[in-house]
Amino acid sequence: MAAATVLRACGAKRPGWLMRGPWAPLASGFCSRGPAEAGRREPEPRPTSARQRDGIRNIVLSNPRKRNALSLAMLKSLQSDILHDAESKDLKVIIISAEGPVFSSGHDLKELTDEQGHGYHAEVFETCSKVMMQIQSHPIPIIAMVNGLAAAAGCQLVASCDIAVASDKSSFATPGVNIGLFCSTPGVALGRTVPKKVALEMLFTGEPISAQEALSHGLLSKVVPEEQLEEATMKIAKKIASLSRPVVSLGKAAFYKQLPQDLRTAYCLTSQTMVDNLALQDGQEGIKAFIQKRKPIWSH
Amino acid sequence: MAAATVLRACGAKRPGWLMRGPWAPLASGFCSRGPAEAGRREPEPRPTSARQRDGIRNIVLSNPRKRNALSLAMLKSLQSDILHDAESKDLKVIIISAEGPVFSSGHDLKELTDEQGHGYHAEVFETCSKVMMQIQSHPIPIIAMVNGLAAAAGCQLVASCDIAVASDKSSFATPGVNIGLFCSTPGVALGRTVPKKVALEMLFTGEPISAQEALSHGLLSKVVPEEQLEEATMKIAKKIASLSRPVVSLGKAAFYKQLPQDLRTAYCLTSQTMVDNLALQDGQEGIKAFIQKRKPIWSH
Amino acid sequence: MAAATVLRACGAKRPGWLMRGPWAPLASGFCSRGPAEAGRREPEPRPTSARQRDGIRNIVLSNPRKRNALSLAMLKSLQSDILHDAESKDLKVIIISAEGPVFSSGHDLKELTDEQGHGYHAEVFETCSKVMMQIQSHPIPIIAMVNGLAAAAGCQLVASCDIAVASDKSSFATPGVNIGLFCSTPGVALGRTVPKKVALEMLFTGEPISAQEALSHGLLSKVVPEEQLEEATMKIAKKIASLSRPVVSLGKAAFYKQLPQDLRTAYCLTSQTMVDNLALQDGQEGIKAFIQKRKPIWSH
Repeated sequence: MAAATVLRACGAKRPGWLMRGPWAPLASGFCSRGPAEAGRREPEPRPTSARQRDGIRNIVLSNPRKRNALSLAMLKSLQSDILHDAESKDLKVIIISAEGPVFSSGHDLKELTDEQGHGYHAEVFETCSKVMMQIQSHPIPIIAMVNGLAAAAGCQLVASCDIAVASDKSSFATPGVNIGLFCSTPGVALGRTVPKKVALEMLFTGEPISAQEALSHGLLSKVVPEEQLEEATMKIAKKIASLSRPVVSLGKAAFYKQLPQDLRTAYCLTSQTMVDNLALQDGQEGIKAFIQKRKPIWSH
Repeated sequence: MAAATVLRACGAKRPGWLMRGPWAPLASGFCSRGPAEAGRREPEPRPTSARQRDGIRNIVLSNPRKRNALSLAMLKSLQSDILHDAESKDLKVIIISAEGPVFSSGHDLKELTDEQGHGYHAEVFETCSKVMMQIQSHPIPIIAMVNGLAAAAGCQLVASCDIAVASDKSSFATPGVNIGLFCSTPGVALGRTVPKKVALEMLFTGEPISAQEALSHGLLSKVVPEEQLEEATMKIAKKIASLSRPVVSLGKAAFYKQLPQDLRTAYCLTSQTMVDNLALQDGQEGIKAFIQKRKPIWSH
Repeated sequence: MAAATVLRACGAKRPGWLMRGPWAPLASGFCSRGPAEAGRREPEPRPTSARQRDGIRNIVLSNPRKRNALSLAMLKSLQSDILHDAESKDLKVIIISAEGPVFSSGHDLKELTDEQGHGYHAEVFETCSKVMMQIQSHPIPIIAMVNGLAAAAGCQLVASCDIAVASDKSSFATPGVNIGLFCSTPGVALGRTVPKKVALEMLFTGEPISAQEALSHGLLSKVVPEEQLEEATMKIAKKIASLSRPVVSLGKAAFYKQLPQDLRTAYCLTSQTMVDNLALQDGQEGIKAFIQKRKPIWSH
């Protein structure tokens, strides 16, 4: 029920994976790239791929030839993969990564020319904003695993995830000013993640910052050598996958809800969250297990 | 008058040190551990101790056997020690520290079982939230001096203090997810102190961060080797104790009030605060002393 | 039109450089220190100087004998230099620096004695607050270039600029408590720039932090050796001067507007900003140039 509420709050009228279009998942299944359906017009390959195992869903931006640009098709495919079966008990954590040397270069500029028209431009930015908000309102934690440049809306995607792990060769930029398109929407996520002066220097100059700088300013949770990136990210994901999903969901929702509130309202809300958490089956199981010095057995 | 307002704002109907219960201070005085009263049922020892000298009040969490768990008794004792004589001109600064190798392990889980019931759970979290807010609304600065692990509500206590000094062996965690109880109330203080991604990784994984990481992310004001902890903390406390109490009080209240306001409202408020500050006896004394190149003599 | 709106929003009834007073610019021109007009009473020298070249305006606090104190005259002169011709297409970026070893020591304490009276005190703080807000509402980026101590309102000025570059010998303090005048207005800018605990330790103890600490806490954008300060600052300024002014203006206004908003409102606002940006002549020129692999030619 909570997940259904999230989906409604996200403004998704129908779950994304039911939608059909050039970006739609292949019929052979959400989580693999099967052959196209017979008797159906050959669809373009999906720009993202997803697979799920042991509670961990890996979503991969898979258009390295176009530097994983967040075209409208890519955004909708990403959205579909994020929202798919969001309420499933088997889903505990999502990792978003990318194929190739660029995590994502941001919007596809060919979609932003005069010829496309205002209406199309508006759809691109609204879809992008919606995906970023859906990451936050999603019932489970979403981790960005970055190995390379994350620019513009690509940097926004990293800033929007709950946790972000990057290889030390990664870099982060909001270079829109160079092409006359100020990174105003990326600035929303960036300005809520790094200090104001760091965000403004990035936005005004378009110059990239290193992974180490991104870490020290709060854009990343962890930086590791490239060869340890997957292991370090999986360690966090496995830890989260070992926890009680209802407990983590309740906590994530409460955290984001209280953050902009005044202190008194925030404590009223979260004090009630703590009481509700204790009333969950897993809340009591966890405490009992701790007192009895045994491992807890989560409901899911 | 200002302090009385603070006490009212804190929701304390009567000053804490007049309250009686198992946690009440021994009759021989608030600030020492004297012998129990004759003819009175032996009370449990107070879980905090407090002494005050030269304007500096030291409050010590004193239940190392239970890892200084913030039981309801501990919370009420801490609250009493914080609010006691808050309006006294002789009180300039408070230091909160702890006995033993753990600063505080957070709530007492034995108080959070089903047997205790919702009403009791609610009282625990409401009392805890109140204490954290009272630290912020208190008329004088409150410093956490940490030497060891501060976990869950213990980490929240550190995050809630105005200033926090820690030894380099200290660590900080919000490990509630491990026992099925997401640290939602600690997340209020943590989310207002460290970057969002740092807070979320701590909350979602339960893994501790080191004192150095806590410093670089804004949870601490200073990190020093263990043997210098007391000296470094006392240096800050003595400096504050040498200042004008009304000036520091006015400033602390204005700082927290303006922080969540929009810029224009914040500047209106604080411009008036500056004018009011100048109208204080100590405001004019300080400026005169500076111009006359002598030390100021504060009213208190 | 946008710039005119900014000027109105700033509360400036007439552009600052038309105002006349002891601090008014010399008649020989806004941007140079020419000889005083004949037949006019000898004015005091302006406490700031300004010159503009290639889109970059350099404003210099020029009263090193008084440690560049932000007297009412200095504040009005700075305000005039900042607001002068704000809507000019030739102005792309402003750098604020200072003569002598102190960037600015803050308010002129001689203006804050009892003899001056409440009305004068109020004017000082209101003017100061207005200047700080005008930096943020100004249509172009404003950079602080700091080489030395920035204290109290001087530290506030650095915190209020969009970008701040400092030499490694610089330091930053809010020492008002030492003279009985808590830095409440500086705390507005500081509390929005560095973590709460860092701001409070600075405000409560009055102790300075180093340039490196200021950098790591978000008060500065960059720290360089003294001999590289001008070059490093000019590199940023030249980069901004090479960009489209309407694009940068649109982006700066949107960034500050969205920052305090809730996430959904912020994304609604900035999604529209992106669409508006694309509708600008320079928005389309930039994208066309990128696709055609040539340098863009900005309208201004």
